Amino acid sequence: MTKHTILYDTDPGIDDALALLFLARHPDIALAGITSVFGNAGIDTTTTNALYLASRFAPDVPVARGAAAPLQQPAPEPIAHIHGNDALGDVERIGRVDKQTDGRAAHRFIVDTVRANPGEITLLAVGPMTNLALALKEDPEIATLVREVVVMGGAFGFHGTLGNATPAAEANMHADPHAADIVFGAPWKMSIVGLDVTHETVMTTAFLASLRDEAGAAGRFVWDVSRFYERFHAHGGMSRGIYAHDYSAAAFVVARELYTTRRGPVRVLTEGIATGLTIQKPLSMPETAPDWDTRPACDVCIGVDADAVLDLFARTLSN
Amino acid sequence: MTKHTILYDTDPGIDDALALLFLARHPDIALAGITSVFGNAGIDTTTTNALYLASRFAPDVPVARGAAAPLQQPAPEPIAHIHGNDALGDVERIGRVDKQTDGRAAHRFIVDTVRANPGEITLLAVGPMTNLALALKEDPEIATLVREVVVMGGAFGFHGTLGNATPAAEANMHADPHAADIVFGAPWKMSIVGLDVTHETVMTTAFLASLRDEAGAAGRFVWDVSRFYERFHAHGGMSRGIYAHDYSAAAFVVARELYTTRRGPVRVLTEGIATGLTIQKPLSMPETAPDWDTRPACDVCIGVDADAVLDLFARTLSN
Repeated sequence: MTKHTILYDTDPGIDDALALLFLARHPDIALAGITSVFGNAGIDTTTTNALYLASRFAPDVPVARGAAAPLQQPAPEPIAHIHGNDALGDVERIGRVDKQTDGRAAHRFIVDTVRANPGEITLLAVGPMTNLALALKEDPEIATLVREVVVMGGAFGFHGTLGNATPAAEANMHADPHAADIVFGAPWKMSIVGLDVTHETVMTTAFLASLRDEAGAAGRFVWDVSRFYERFHAHGGMSRGIYAHDYSAAAFVVARELYTTRRGPVRVLTEGIATGLTIQKPLSMPETAPDWDTRPACDVCIGVDADAVLDLFARTLSN
Repeated sequence: MTKHTILYDTDPGIDDALALLFLARHPDIALAGITSVFGNAGIDTTTTNALYLASRFAPDVPVARGAAAPLQQPAPEPIAHIHGNDALGDVERIGRVDKQTDGRAAHRFIVDTVRANPGEITLLAVGPMTNLALALKEDPEIATLVREVVVMGGAFGFHGTLGNATPAAEANMHADPHAADIVFGAPWKMSIVGLDVTHETVMTTAFLASLRDEAGAAGRFVWDVSRFYERFHAHGGMSRGIYAHDYSAAAFVVARELYTTRRGPVRVLTEGIATGLTIQKPLSMPETAPDWDTRPACDVCIGVDADAVLDLFARTLSN
């Protein structure tokens, strides 16, 4: 029986691709759709990648093209040093891409899918929050119709960092802080999986090599696309391996018992040198703070059983 | 031999008083002066308290009255729920206060003292940074003439919090963020002792009772003034005890081997919902960040041997 019907909002991206493999293969997950968004690359590239990944690994899943730019800022300059020129590690692609995008814009696709499946859809968003904010703007009632929202993004300092795009901002939050602040303020069940746990969840070179050798075509794909990403991580000082950013949010959906969370409203700074910074007011804090107190509580991941999360990935891809 | 000549900038305040006791009694410390600043109470109250504390525990040390309000904001409303109406726990005072303030304003007193003792003075600042910022404005060269600056303030998330005054700001930073951003940007040797370590350094009720019984008049003073402060902490959910905020910065001066630090420039947000938030760019971060990269590196405390720090306090007061 399908336990989780997921609409996957993504900007592939290497770690997005790894998460999609997991979503496509986990027996308790059904994918209701994939929506692309700018982020790790421009919207043309991320949409092309979403179509390619869906063709190879989730052929029956519709893909809708999403936002090309953040709500209130121009589209960012393309970057190639993290995910490669094609944002999937610049490796040879396998197979035909015979899929086309759904005719609807991503935010419209989100609204329609949630409306058609009230109480059933988990929105899993691992890129900038633009599509989700646009969907809320178009139809605020979806906030009461989704099952839950799980976001990869943000950083709350538990692991010694507040950001990776800047000293104050994780990349998805930095890419569209206005959208993120809207999304975290909507009255839906919201969980946030940020650097506090993804920086604890490292796929080492040995782990990736083991997948290459033991997990068939999926494992070889993981190995191939992660070579570029691993070189980027080495530049940042990591000895050998990659952070499992987007997969961590996917793992949270099916195995939240592997995470510890802290509850409280979350704001995202939208201006100044710390734009994109996520700040939670823990429910345990007695002081009044009007900028937080009027907003719904979110669950922020602050701890993780990383070994179990990585084992879940390996088992799911090897089955 | 005196190893540390300290100018103590303070807004007493109960934990400020505890730190002053330590400074006055530690054999390796000479106090070159005490400068008051608004903060835990208005400037009249903190100056009155500085004179009282100096009369009782450091009679030969001059006291200079400092800033009544932050650089660019009006003076805050008085608060009494943390440190009491008199900001020293509302207990009976002992002895005559026959001291008067130095004729000079605190920032002038700081400049003169640093100029008179080039390379010798440690500025230990445990209130809002206003006096230090005014001193820098009056005479920027003092940055190259002090021995070092140690600040109690800020929070960097390591202990799961970014603030105590707001969800984003520690009280000293929140009280005058513009001054703090100036002080952290000056080219002096700067160490920051924030909530990341002070929230780890808890004087329990049993610890305080032991001082009461074994550390003479100083121990009884500590016990008496900390009763009010302990009730405030209980309101915030702490089982029994108080945070050793300001003392931690004093301990750092003489026992920095008990702390682990992270190096990198620090900014303080001066506007928006997170005003007063401290953000460090670790030197290990490879990304460029112009708002940080042009500024000098500071040492931020991220870990502490709390048992040893507390033991140092007990031993110093008991001698």
